[in-house]
Amino acid sequence: MSAKRLITKSDYRNFLSNFDTFLFDCDGVLWKSTKLLPNVQQTLNFIRLKGKSIAFVTNNSSKPREEYQKKFMELGLHVKLDEIFNSSYSAALYLKNVVKFPKEKKIYIIGEEGGTDPSERRDIKAEDFENLNLDPSVGAVLCGLDLHINYLKYSRALGYLQNENVLFLITNSDSTYPASGGLFPGTGSCSAPLLNASGRKAIFLGKPNPEMLQAIESKFKFNKSRTCFIGDRIDTDILFAKNSGIKSCLVLTGISKEDVILKNTSNIMPDYYMEMLGNLLNADDI
Amino acid sequence: MSAKRLITKSDYRNFLSNFDTFLFDCDGVLWKSTKLLPNVQQTLNFIRLKGKSIAFVTNNSSKPREEYQKKFMELGLHVKLDEIFNSSYSAALYLKNVVKFPKEKKIYIIGEEGGTDPSERRDIKAEDFENLNLDPSVGAVLCGLDLHINYLKYSRALGYLQNENVLFLITNSDSTYPASGGLFPGTGSCSAPLLNASGRKAIFLGKPNPEMLQAIESKFKFNKSRTCFIGDRIDTDILFAKNSGIKSCLVLTGISKEDVILKNTSNIMPDYYMEMLGNLLNADDI
Repeated sequence: MSAKRLITKSDYRNFLSNFDTFLFDCDGVLWKSTKLLPNVQQTLNFIRLKGKSIAFVTNNSSKPREEYQKKFMELGLHVKLDEIFNSSYSAALYLKNVVKFPKEKKIYIIGEEGGTDPSERRDIKAEDFENLNLDPSVGAVLCGLDLHINYLKYSRALGYLQNENVLFLITNSDSTYPASGGLFPGTGSCSAPLLNASGRKAIFLGKPNPEMLQAIESKFKFNKSRTCFIGDRIDTDILFAKNSGIKSCLVLTGISKEDVILKNTSNIMPDYYMEMLGNLLNADDI
Repeated sequence: MSAKRLITKSDYRNFLSNFDTFLFDCDGVLWKSTKLLPNVQQTLNFIRLKGKSIAFVTNNSSKPREEYQKKFMELGLHVKLDEIFNSSYSAALYLKNVVKFPKEKKIYIIGEEGGTDPSERRDIKAEDFENLNLDPSVGAVLCGLDLHINYLKYSRALGYLQNENVLFLITNSDSTYPASGGLFPGTGSCSAPLLNASGRKAIFLGKPNPEMLQAIESKFKFNKSRTCFIGDRIDTDILFAKNSGIKSCLVLTGISKEDVILKNTSNIMPDYYMEMLGNLLNADDI
């Protein structure tokens, strides 16, 4: 199946009329690093004025949603907290609404958000090898990106995971993430010791895993057949849409380039593609 | 192929006469935790008196060989430093003798042994994300078990591994190791973020990988066709012998039990098996 390129005014109008809900990836779609892409503000306003609902979906788990909202604001984009779905929030929604995690049970969290116990930010000691003091009320292990990861946390998480009744969630499967100084280990890499040592499989939230959409759906109501995901990465964004059973549109302002579509080098194809998000303004009457 | 059980005096005599060199696993063969198994001291003396050469092969990488020698001494076993091959020493031999690692190049080490730079026992800082200050003379990354693992070390190692010319070695592939307080993450688990993030394959030292025998052979001369590995684990010790092209003998004083052999539940079979190492004294004339 080939991707439809949006070019003419009528392409853009038909595209918009096909959907009631748009879900957006952020970096590479709305902005690049700290710079807003052309006409993004106007485009989001235009989509809202057309009566569409929108939400933002990111694999980032290291910042709370409030921090994310601040970033939007700083770039001049007004978004509601309820429109932001990062992978740690989605993990919380997944536990609460999808698997109905019992209220009386605790979650052992490895990650930047959610306040890891400061008593765990220390090296493992000889006495820990005799007794890890595991809390019997823990019913789930949730692993996100943790810049303060250590052997004690891995050991405790492994201790919990040896009980097959303890749920095992990982906020996303990204192997790396880019910073100005190069590539750094992502959540998928930081959580690898737990998969390797426990021999268990985990529920991965985050794109491209469909559990992410299940989590979003549990909070934000929309008709899947009239929903489109707009993203810049074939292997996460577009695959996420395919895995989740919604339509997708690739923009060429980020990672994946038009070559992938023209040369048909990927077996994952978006339904639509366009140069940049701002081009949607072409559908406007003026 | 079925394993030959050693029972009679003549079984033991024939077994001994087939080999000039015996390589031993330690825990489960010589001792269990801190307790020597029956007649081990006498058996090792007897083998030496018969003119055989011996060496000890362990996947442990967290202690220098000198510490290991001390453990032997404390249990009444007199062994030379040159007879001890742990996986970190084997990694060093492998680099020096097998791949002829250039002397002017450095090795970036993650692990307990080998003195990781104390300046790396800290949390990653914002400026590290801009510049990891990688040393251009590093030509290999060697990862062993590190109880002080942190995000900075993973990030630096990943920085080096992005250069395909930098060698990548891991001391062993053990996913866990047992302590009195339960199972803890092993080297194979602690190194998993580096494999995941770099997308590279590593050279694994340690049993069951044949690189371990290549490393030992580079230092300790023996005729492979007249060498037998004596171990207690089918999945590491016996597999190591198979992978390395030497004969093997299972003892039943450790992890693997006679059931595995009688029921033929494994496709890895030792050439011989006996109840315990001390039984080799049956080959004695007296």
